Amino acid sequence: MIVIGDRINGSLENVRRAIGSRDAGAIARLAAKQAEAGAAYMDINAGMFGEREAEQLEWLAACAQSGAPLPLSLDSPHPAALRRALAANRNGKPIVNSITGEKKRFDGVLPLVREYGASVIALCMDGASAPRDAGGRVEAAERILEKLVGAGVALADIYIDPLIMPIAAGARHAEAALETVRGIRLLHPDIRITCGLSNISHGLPARRLVNRVFLAAAMAAGLDSAIMDPLDGELMASACAAEAMLGRGAGREALEAFVGRYGGGGSE
Amino acid sequence: MIVIGDRINGSLENVRRAIGSRDAGAIARLAAKQAEAGAAYMDINAGMFGEREAEQLEWLAACAQSGAPLPLSLDSPHPAALRRALAANRNGKPIVNSITGEKKRFDGVLPLVREYGASVIALCMDGASAPRDAGGRVEAAERILEKLVGAGVALADIYIDPLIMPIAAGARHAEAALETVRGIRLLHPDIRITCGLSNISHGLPARRLVNRVFLAAAMAAGLDSAIMDPLDGELMASACAAEAMLGRGAGREALEAFVGRYGGGGSE
Repeated sequence: MIVIGDRINGSLENVRRAIGSRDAGAIARLAAKQAEAGAAYMDINAGMFGEREAEQLEWLAACAQSGAPLPLSLDSPHPAALRRALAANRNGKPIVNSITGEKKRFDGVLPLVREYGASVIALCMDGASAPRDAGGRVEAAERILEKLVGAGVALADIYIDPLIMPIAAGARHAEAALETVRGIRLLHPDIRITCGLSNISHGLPARRLVNRVFLAAAMAAGLDSAIMDPLDGELMASACAAEAMLGRGAGREALEAFVGRYGGGGSE
Repeated sequence: MIVIGDRINGSLENVRRAIGSRDAGAIARLAAKQAEAGAAYMDINAGMFGEREAEQLEWLAACAQSGAPLPLSLDSPHPAALRRALAANRNGKPIVNSITGEKKRFDGVLPLVREYGASVIALCMDGASAPRDAGGRVEAAERILEKLVGAGVALADIYIDPLIMPIAAGARHAEAALETVRGIRLLHPDIRITCGLSNISHGLPARRLVNRVFLAAAMAAGLDSAIMDPLDGELMASACAAEAMLGRGAGREALEAFVGRYGGGGSE
């Protein structure tokens, strides 16, 4: 399971404050905590800053990397912001988050992915909005995969994102996402599949509970990465148990190590 | 989600002691606690008592029903024990747990199911052991379903059990069970599918954590019942969140009610 830490996001109150007061130490500490908790990448997002997004994203990249030696996931649809953040990346192959099959966005982002040898998260959509049903999303994934591979991007550098819509906005949204994951996994046994996990629980009570239940179901369907909160110990424990359950990763040994470190899920 | 409470089982230390000292109150209290926590049925098991199984099962049935007005799930492969417990059932339609397609067991248990108008849990096997892979289990389920329906048992009275083998005994056991659930659900959109949940974590650390992760994945695959511990609040919370996630049951309202009663899964 590849955990892409989601804590350095300008839409979170503490991060917005740190950006506002140029508190580099606060961002560095968030980075260090996520690395310590098991994140493999740090997602950084400054989308809420509008015209200042590129500048703020570059600053976040510098601060995050001063706190932890993890590669970055650069969370923006905008080529200008991506370019500045890519130029600031120092810790190994970064992830561009994200590209779609929409011509303008694809043509704007692809050259950056190639120039910087980055990995890329490809959303299952090639219009302005996502197909509602799993069939449509799997087809969109196939089209964008074909375009990316045709442009020379290695399959190993592509993360497919099934698009997670909030359950609160539609009773079928979780099942559509799970079916999309399952469909892509059937077609591509080895491709990376990731998602923005917390979207699923937007607007619901007990968000963390819903997040970890969905994560378990999505991992069983074939998800092997998520943009998620590594500081949520229960969520990380669920990810670890799901890997053990599915015979993936380090399996039982990882579960034992995790339980030794954080405590178990209750006795029996 | 139909929860069949698994706490009245002679293999559990406190229940064995209560049986040994004829402490009817202890069994009644376990029944009441399970009902209060949301169980729809109470499974009772006295299999460890060998030749005295029938007598002990009948006693458990009486004690359990004095504690809570829930129907029983009678957990035995033995017709003699099942008959005595069925005769003691007073709280609505009971469940016979379980039948298989094996001729001797089928012919021994089926007449009791019919005579008492009981529901029945059908294991996905018709030999002495379970097929290892999901395909074999789905086929076994089809054969036993055909035999049960042919003998006049209503589809609504049949619970299919995909057979849960411990992950610790085989890295593919969880996936085989999940694929079996998915296969049966595809063939039979409305049939009940249940399982003995805690088998999955036998021999592992952090059993409760593994149980709830597997439950979420199994519910997403189509499980709509489980023989499980209703006194495990985290497990019940996961079941509730999974229902909300899948747009089943009372959904969001149930999640809100549950969180109001037991607290949420962490803030956001």
